[in-house]
Amino acid sequence: MLRNGQTKRLRDICEMGHPAVVADLLSTLNSEEVWAVLGSASPRRRAEIFVHLPEALQVDIVTSLTRSDIAHLLTDMPPDERTDLFKQLPRSLREAVLPALAQAEREDIRRLSSYEEGTAGAVMTSDYATLAPELTVAQALDHLRAVAPDKETVFYTYVVGADRKLLGFVSLKDLIIAPREARVAEIMHRDVIFARADEDQEEAARRIQKYDLLALPVVDARGVLVGIITHDDALDVITQEHTEDMEKLMAIGGSHRGPGYLSTSAWVHFRNRAGWLVGLAALGLASGTIIRAFQSILSRMLILALYMPMLADTGGNAGSQSATVVVRALALREVSCRDFARVLWKELKTATMLAALLAFLSWGKVMFLSHGVQLPPGYTLPRIAMAIAVALGIQVVSATLIGALLPLAVAALNCDPALVASPALTTLVDITGLAIYFTTAKLLLGL
Amino acid sequence: MLRNGQTKRLRDICEMGHPAVVADLLSTLNSEEVWAVLGSASPRRRAEIFVHLPEALQVDIVTSLTRSDIAHLLTDMPPDERTDLFKQLPRSLREAVLPALAQAEREDIRRLSSYEEGTAGAVMTSDYATLAPELTVAQALDHLRAVAPDKETVFYTYVVGADRKLLGFVSLKDLIIAPREARVAEIMHRDVIFARADEDQEEAARRIQKYDLLALPVVDARGVLVGIITHDDALDVITQEHTEDMEKLMAIGGSHRGPGYLSTSAWVHFRNRAGWLVGLAALGLASGTIIRAFQSILSRMLILALYMPMLADTGGNAGSQSATVVVRALALREVSCRDFARVLWKELKTATMLAALLAFLSWGKVMFLSHGVQLPPGYTLPRIAMAIAVALGIQVVSATLIGALLPLAVAALNCDPALVASPALTTLVDITGLAIYFTTAKLLLGL
Repeated sequence: MLRNGQTKRLRDICEMGHPAVVADLLSTLNSEEVWAVLGSASPRRRAEIFVHLPEALQVDIVTSLTRSDIAHLLTDMPPDERTDLFKQLPRSLREAVLPALAQAEREDIRRLSSYEEGTAGAVMTSDYATLAPELTVAQALDHLRAVAPDKETVFYTYVVGADRKLLGFVSLKDLIIAPREARVAEIMHRDVIFARADEDQEEAARRIQKYDLLALPVVDARGVLVGIITHDDALDVITQEHTEDMEKLMAIGGSHRGPGYLSTSAWVHFRNRAGWLVGLAALGLASGTIIRAFQSILSRMLILALYMPMLADTGGNAGSQSATVVVRALALREVSCRDFARVLWKELKTATMLAALLAFLSWGKVMFLSHGVQLPPGYTLPRIAMAIAVALGIQVVSATLIGALLPLAVAALNCDPALVASPALTTLVDITGLAIYFTTAKLLLGL
Repeated sequence: MLRNGQTKRLRDICEMGHPAVVADLLSTLNSEEVWAVLGSASPRRRAEIFVHLPEALQVDIVTSLTRSDIAHLLTDMPPDERTDLFKQLPRSLREAVLPALAQAEREDIRRLSSYEEGTAGAVMTSDYATLAPELTVAQALDHLRAVAPDKETVFYTYVVGADRKLLGFVSLKDLIIAPREARVAEIMHRDVIFARADEDQEEAARRIQKYDLLALPVVDARGVLVGIITHDDALDVITQEHTEDMEKLMAIGGSHRGPGYLSTSAWVHFRNRAGWLVGLAALGLASGTIIRAFQSILSRMLILALYMPMLADTGGNAGSQSATVVVRALALREVSCRDFARVLWKELKTATMLAALLAFLSWGKVMFLSHGVQLPPGYTLPRIAMAIAVALGIQVVSATLIGALLPLAVAALNCDPALVASPALTTLVDITGLAIYFTTAKLLLGL
């Protein structure tokens, strides 16, 4: 259509449907084509569609535009999206664009981008409406009617004093129900749930979730309203934190604000994964050392080598399970470090049941699957099977407890419990498992 | 305070602050105490606080009440919360309570509880306002003013025809901006984004996230509006699905709608974990079989046993990493099964870099850490180290590719990709790894 100059039909496409749908359609085109299509939309609509494009494409498009085009586009974007995009631009472009913006937008970008990544301040928007407490309901509604077309949301409005300190909030529902001559100060809710700008973004997002809010006001150290976090941004923060937890748990490093999987280069994927793999390989040295220490036992009783992987795997699996359950319970605030003893007790009970079941099964396994394996003289298969089963039981209990306690210990140190990555745990319980295995064999079989 | 009969102060506590805060305070008490405190609150406030209590406590409280108390409480609760609670009650109590409810509530519970768990229908609420298209804006506002106190949200209102088919929606913002004499049909948005009642709840929740909605209307097969899903329920669905993904990834079974970690009994924890552990142990038999097949090689060259855990662990870790990244990219809709070739190519590049790095390190490891280990006559350490390094490189590439492709294959079969649990993957690449290890050693060392 672009090639045939069917601008009328292109405009129709841009105007139809939700901006996110149009953005989805456009994201398969290259940056010049997208901009050509957007050119046929109204400036406001253009910005609405633009913010739904993937971030990498947004940056691509912007870097090919003129300074004044960029300035117009930025002006039409919602303040938080605008600031995010601005922060992605190369330094030289940022400096070139700033003077082309109106004073208000310039100040706004400077203010919003001054908060550190990961804080409530960095995800908030300045796109909200405020009311003075002395207004009547009728005046307040008139005011909202005037500003509404420019605001992302007017469903919640914040009541601030002359010093811009947050006093309360009213919802649009409150305003339409209340008598027209009532004062805002009389109908506003004074028990406002808010976030501090320097707080963790996840804390703020969880607060929106807990209290079922549409938006959460953000204040600075003096209680002055500086922005709001909307429910849709909270949802994005929580999704981003989910990804981070999951990747940490699987020992993958790197930033989670980056582009999607396919847009990330193999080199970056490599970098995110290599650190942990190398570290874990170094940790794995210990398991080699343990086997070396017991090599005389192993050479005399080769049957033990056959069941080494079973012991290591089962321990790793049991430890990963308890670690996952505890990490998740910590993330959802179901348990805290103070529940140490209760978690230990519950895991001990669970682990004992698992150990009994798995030891029994492994005994059967060794008994029925070891035909054709040479045994050293003087040893019977049932005795060896019993030793292996006992070792497996001890390994399951110890791995489960290590998996549950490690995240609690990390949380007690005020670090993210998801740092106890499952691969790290697997490697760790492999080491303890081998020590348990050979020590048990030595003691029970008198090697 | 309860004991001293300070009902006035108790009432103050109930009336102050957000219901979720009061519920937090109360959740440390036992069910009788909570109900005694709630008794001092107004019926509406009582229901508001009640819905924020933990589900197990809700059920405890309700089972100790009289039929008519239960009926009053249920009537005051929002329809979706009411239905959730109702479904948790024992069958006999459900049958006793139903006749005590008014016809409207009874019908509502019956309708909402008729949808299968996990569908959009099961998370929706019937607590929304509708408008007829022929109303004027002034009439619509009057109508909303009248119904608002009883509705959870009036920020979005749905426009339905005489047959209750969904025609469009208007936001409260649209209504206050529009001229008072305009018709609803003229100002409503006709391009409504909606969900079907039998759709997956996660699909519906992701739609709310994608389009930044406050609420998503739910229609039946004929297009009749049957409910809405609100943004806060979408957030809860996404959190719940995330727990599910994480636990599946770590091979933990069971329901994720249950109570929290500490409220779940050790027996249920055991049941959720035992299935996978036993299955994986059975899969682990294969690794024992492989080692048995190569036992003559192992007995001749015991040094290979020392580095068996390193090979197995590194492969498991590399595979878990790629699986996690791909599972998450699938969940966030960044890739689909059709991107098969692109994912394969990206993982191949990443894996080759990782393999080169780790093979180099493992060569060094074998060279410098094998002192004191007996070598069979005719073999030098560098030659053995080289064979181990080559095997490790092949293992890293194959494990990474298996980890990436397995979730895609599962997704192509329309199953949940998170089913490719990391422990299962670890056990699987242990098996392929051992086969790679011994085959490489056999070929390169001519054993």
